[in-house]
Amino acid sequence: MITSLANSRVKQVRRLQTDRRYREREGAFVIEGSRWLSELPSLPYLPKAVFYTEAWQRRPEHAAILQDLGAVAQIVSESVMEAMSDTESPSGVLAVLPMKTKPLPTQPTLLLILDQIRDPGNLGTMLRTAAAAGVEGILLSPGCVDPYNPKVVRSAMGAHLRLPLLQVNWTEISERSDGLSVWLAAADGALPYTDVNWRTPSALIIGSEAHGAGDEASTLAGGTTYIPMYAETESLNAAMAAGIMLFEAVRQRR
Amino acid sequence: MITSLANSRVKQVRRLQTDRRYREREGAFVIEGSRWLSELPSLPYLPKAVFYTEAWQRRPEHAAILQDLGAVAQIVSESVMEAMSDTESPSGVLAVLPMKTKPLPTQPTLLLILDQIRDPGNLGTMLRTAAAAGVEGILLSPGCVDPYNPKVVRSAMGAHLRLPLLQVNWTEISERSDGLSVWLAAADGALPYTDVNWRTPSALIIGSEAHGAGDEASTLAGGTTYIPMYAETESLNAAMAAGIMLFEAVRQRR
Repeated sequence: MITSLANSRVKQVRRLQTDRRYREREGAFVIEGSRWLSELPSLPYLPKAVFYTEAWQRRPEHAAILQDLGAVAQIVSESVMEAMSDTESPSGVLAVLPMKTKPLPTQPTLLLILDQIRDPGNLGTMLRTAAAAGVEGILLSPGCVDPYNPKVVRSAMGAHLRLPLLQVNWTEISERSDGLSVWLAAADGALPYTDVNWRTPSALIIGSEAHGAGDEASTLAGGTTYIPMYAETESLNAAMAAGIMLFEAVRQRR
Repeated sequence: MITSLANSRVKQVRRLQTDRRYREREGAFVIEGSRWLSELPSLPYLPKAVFYTEAWQRRPEHAAILQDLGAVAQIVSESVMEAMSDTESPSGVLAVLPMKTKPLPTQPTLLLILDQIRDPGNLGTMLRTAAAAGVEGILLSPGCVDPYNPKVVRSAMGAHLRLPLLQVNWTEISERSDGLSVWLAAADGALPYTDVNWRTPSALIIGSEAHGAGDEASTLAGGTTYIPMYAETESLNAAMAAGIMLFEAVRQRR
């Protein structure tokens, strides 16, 4: 059992939680909680490391998981887990995963392009919602918050393991969305989102709530769309707007 | 100009920000930022107090507002504003408002019933989204987080001033939703939310993400509805699910 906060692996996890450059250099990030474990069988890679507490291990449903993980999993004391965790009440298990994302399909039918989304909770909610809507890939523009930031990972509820997630520049965003109808969500958009034909292969661009979409997003978009609201003074947060539009696409495609 | 943190009005605002019982005893709450000011002309009451900084006052669009407010508005130093504010970067203006909510319409066509929603950010997002969707009233069950908590007020973006908002027990929730089709959102619901006829006068019950809906909610509901997702392992947060369902109602009604 690892009990010392000075242990090098403990220090490494703490640094992965707090230091974006270190995450990038190591090509790894931390995911907490038991939820991601259900994705394990479908992943094309193993975790780099898994740390768990005695209390977590004691639950019967976790014994089989630990057997599958083998030597990758290490038991740690409660205080070590607290130090490693980004949350106030750690769940008792966390994993260090490689930043390997699934590839985009060659002919995607629904992509989400996120333009300078800076709020971690918002970004995480969008990833979770996109996964639930069956979005086939996420393109993150320069200026988005690091998707491997622990707050993003936590709100995304495992979407990192299920969704292709690419941090790319606008040239690549443009190439990746070639052949798709690209719609930009904008408060002053031209077409209500329910009038968009989402049955055609499409990409949706969501900009930041505070600043809207940037020039590159406006240039790339073939049209702008909006959510009609009860009154002009009303508004929605960016993640909510994304979810409402994506599930309209799901509705139309059913 | 108020410059002392020991000033009784400063202390009162700080207590309103942090102490639910004090808010209830005073029948007042604090709202920050300039956004609510646009609601001012349509409110049937005046703020109990408004506090602003010199920097805020200097912006030309604020001069007329201050004139309308008259003696209710008081200038404070930056450090007093920082002490009064619940945020790290105060906007420079905040108001103490009476907890007076608009009345429910006698024959509502769309109500949102929130069952034991404990996360302030989630509750605030639901209020904001409900206002944007034209929901005619919110019924908060016992066990919901205080809707006048500063985090809720901040995420709700002024919805408190536009929406009837009632904290009631289940007997009253039942009375208030008499004659409406009451739908309970549930992951294992019977009918996809797009198959519900939202054109009839309806109420939607949203339960907490962690624990789902309680017994009273299940008893009250005439049916359960769900959002079909890409895979069984997917999920949505409670606010997102509420928004997607409410905007489906808006779509059907247009």
